[in-house]
Amino acid sequence: MQDLLPLPIANLIEAFGRLPGIGPKSAQRLAFHLIGAPEGEVRELVNALLRSKSDLMLCASCFTVTDKTLCQVCSDPMRDHSMICVVQDTKDMLALERMRVYHGLYHVLGGVLSPMDGIGPDELQIRSLLQRLTEESVKELILATNSTMEGEATATFIARLAKPFETLSVTRIAHGIPIGGDLDYADEATLSRALEFRRPI
Amino acid sequence: MQDLLPLPIANLIEAFGRLPGIGPKSAQRLAFHLIGAPEGEVRELVNALLRSKSDLMLCASCFTVTDKTLCQVCSDPMRDHSMICVVQDTKDMLALERMRVYHGLYHVLGGVLSPMDGIGPDELQIRSLLQRLTEESVKELILATNSTMEGEATATFIARLAKPFETLSVTRIAHGIPIGGDLDYADEATLSRALEFRRPI
Repeated sequence: MQDLLPLPIANLIEAFGRLPGIGPKSAQRLAFHLIGAPEGEVRELVNALLRSKSDLMLCASCFTVTDKTLCQVCSDPMRDHSMICVVQDTKDMLALERMRVYHGLYHVLGGVLSPMDGIGPDELQIRSLLQRLTEESVKELILATNSTMEGEATATFIARLAKPFETLSVTRIAHGIPIGGDLDYADEATLSRALEFRRPI
Repeated sequence: MQDLLPLPIANLIEAFGRLPGIGPKSAQRLAFHLIGAPEGEVRELVNALLRSKSDLMLCASCFTVTDKTLCQVCSDPMRDHSMICVVQDTKDMLALERMRVYHGLYHVLGGVLSPMDGIGPDELQIRSLLQRLTEESVKELILATNSTMEGEATATFIARLAKPFETLSVTRIAHGIPIGGDLDYADEATLSRALEFRRPI
């Protein structure tokens, strides 16, 4: 009987259930875990949640999520300010940072073009990107949106907008067989891309 | 670079990562989801968390998690007050309630005996159970702890303590092949139990 469930438990289960990747069973497990957990553990989660809203903002230049007006990458004079890597979100930027091979700057779009969901160029940080291309001396623009249909469309869209900047080189991250990946297991799209973009060795 | 991660994000990922069943990837996904979510969604989760601590307590009689001094089951005069079903936790009680076939009362132990984890009889609601058996006119005590080693040991322990109550019938929920289950797929322990506890038809 769901109505047996005290309201505070039901509400907590519901709140967890709304989170991505949390099914009804997981939501219930999380709720009961926290109900039985020490006050301090709940306090910490609550504080972390509140802080994530109060202390975070978007970087004034690249629009990544940060706790400073200008993020750590944009404010680092050691980074190569002539390169901008365009990514969909902060998570993708962090994934690239973990590689420690890229030393340029970023620009976080905040999503990809998706007319079906009502996301056009104005919903993304595209205007601000063009402004950076105008004001900063950028030599290379690396388009690192995902290789989904929307990601490709967004990359193509930005590449077209960047065309007027004649000295700017616009590139797209490579797609192909993952390193260590087996040709046999690669999906058709990946395999045909790998063939199409073959390069001399 | 983990140090690129603003502290409020890192803290939120860490707080989620401490929850059961949430791995590092899920923790990151949850954190970024909430960072990007509307203020209201975070507020609701925070309130649900705070309420679960402030508004919940253990039922004075059966020790289930509830928002009243006496839980909905214990305070229901239509329930059969002569039967007590002993379960490990509130979740198990709710699972039984969902079946809508049991109309007696419950007693929530708050765990099972587990000497390895320092959980002895005093850490569980066993004394309070014996008190109920003394004070209330209980006719049947159903032991519904899980069929783990600890659950069995706890059931046996309680059954022994309940022996002096001569008019009390102590029973154990049935274990065997699940309905719709295939003999072929049943594990050895279940299959041998199913044979051992066969009953005339």
